[in-house]
Amino acid sequence: MASHTEQSAVTVLGLGPMGRALAGAFLDAGVRTTIWNRTPGKDRELVERGAVSVPSPEEAVAAGGLTVICVVNYDAVDAVLRRDAVTGALKGRTVANLSADTPDRARDTASWAAEHGIGYLDGAIMTPTPTIGTLAGVFLHSGPEQLYREHKPVLDTLGGTQTHLGEDTGRAAAYDLALLDIFWTAMAGYAHALAMARAEGITARELVPFAKGISEILPWVFEVSAEGVDSGDYTDSNNPITSAASSMSHIVHVSESHGIDASVMRAAEGLARQVIGQGHGGSGFLRVTELLNPR
Amino acid sequence: MASHTEQSAVTVLGLGPMGRALAGAFLDAGVRTTIWNRTPGKDRELVERGAVSVPSPEEAVAAGGLTVICVVNYDAVDAVLRRDAVTGALKGRTVANLSADTPDRARDTASWAAEHGIGYLDGAIMTPTPTIGTLAGVFLHSGPEQLYREHKPVLDTLGGTQTHLGEDTGRAAAYDLALLDIFWTAMAGYAHALAMARAEGITARELVPFAKGISEILPWVFEVSAEGVDSGDYTDSNNPITSAASSMSHIVHVSESHGIDASVMRAAEGLARQVIGQGHGGSGFLRVTELLNPR
Repeated sequence: MASHTEQSAVTVLGLGPMGRALAGAFLDAGVRTTIWNRTPGKDRELVERGAVSVPSPEEAVAAGGLTVICVVNYDAVDAVLRRDAVTGALKGRTVANLSADTPDRARDTASWAAEHGIGYLDGAIMTPTPTIGTLAGVFLHSGPEQLYREHKPVLDTLGGTQTHLGEDTGRAAAYDLALLDIFWTAMAGYAHALAMARAEGITARELVPFAKGISEILPWVFEVSAEGVDSGDYTDSNNPITSAASSMSHIVHVSESHGIDASVMRAAEGLARQVIGQGHGGSGFLRVTELLNPR
Repeated sequence: MASHTEQSAVTVLGLGPMGRALAGAFLDAGVRTTIWNRTPGKDRELVERGAVSVPSPEEAVAAGGLTVICVVNYDAVDAVLRRDAVTGALKGRTVANLSADTPDRARDTASWAAEHGIGYLDGAIMTPTPTIGTLAGVFLHSGPEQLYREHKPVLDTLGGTQTHLGEDTGRAAAYDLALLDIFWTAMAGYAHALAMARAEGITARELVPFAKGISEILPWVFEVSAEGVDSGDYTDSNNPITSAASSMSHIVHVSESHGIDASVMRAAEGLARQVIGQGHGGSGFLRVTELLNPR
């Protein structure tokens, strides 16, 4: 069992842009911070700010009760943690894994941790590096609630909104992927819109005020549609999916007439057309959810 | 030339949900409003509110100086306007076409109008029916500036933000399609995220607070990226496209492991992988714009 002193200290493994932001926020909050990175040379600024840099991950995890790891994916997590020296040093301590991967990998890592007497929390960081340590940060956590409560004081120093989603270790990764799905699909739409706009002589700067306006509608659309999606009621008589499909085919047609690949919109239109082909042309677009995952 | 009295009157052709909302806003603003719809029975509430319903489009357009048409697409516009009786009645009058279609169809309609001595403005309505006549409405217009200025007092009664984008008649449709591209691609991402979340035991109501949070980042991302897209500088060292591609492949993998079609994300990931294959793995995701439409 880690002593009180060890619990108010933290170890950060992985010093990519996000790992450095996490360590910086811990240091700003006065938490004793030990750091390690697989490749050297990423620790200088953090050491100047008071971090203790050590040459091996086993030394790093032994320095405190809580190890936060943030690396590219769980293959990289495994490469660091699943070595005898590190696994042994972690016994009786806790890992908060803020790396991104799939729910199954999170659950698998929790099983590995349980087998080796290691406390395990899985988490996801939903906002970019400049938000870390500020009110704008958004962190999702899952795993044993008792363990989360124990380490919450240190994790809270990362700032922003910290939410414990439940005991299922995979839950933070599942939320993370669903939210990234929205974000990256929207970004693909933005990139395509910019390409099509340029072909029509419209610059990004000209489009952006309107692009901001249309994206500001999304939170409202998400809010008002949630109950219907949960209950399977996709009635939206003012905005039938036939109308969405009509817009989509215009977009495909115009972009391809400019020689611009429309594969993303073609796929989206294909889903809408399947819903219409099922006889649900009068439903709202979100009936696509039912097509993708029938209840 | 229409008299002053005729100019302060308006004709609305097409009484679908949007056409009815437009006519209702004109009536609320005290504009004399004549209405017509291809199929009968959509006019009752508007007549009760003071609209004059007439049995033919030629009678309707003859009632005032400005005709607003809002039907499903330009094939439907042509079916109404490109008949001798209607074309003749429109001579010396103006059409503001708020139907949605492609920039080329808008330009073609402007040519037809010019040949027949008809003033022509093309427009797009960017917000849903409940916003019409309120501050929240967003309308885009293109076509001759002088003609727009002449009819602006009546068009402004539709409320919200009215923007004249330029003399190129296709411009409103081009903005419209680019903005719908962003909106419907994002909605495809939302539908897919909801399907994947449900497979992981997460309801729409549980996901929505976080989905709103992630979509609230988009206006900021659009804003900060515009200048780089215009200048071809896609540097984004904290958020390389390799990291986006990694998230995308997780999403494809997890959704397909639940039997959920991932065609939209597969297409988006394909674009990201092509950019990486071109040697631009360190660029930001928006270099996809350059792949789609090289300058």
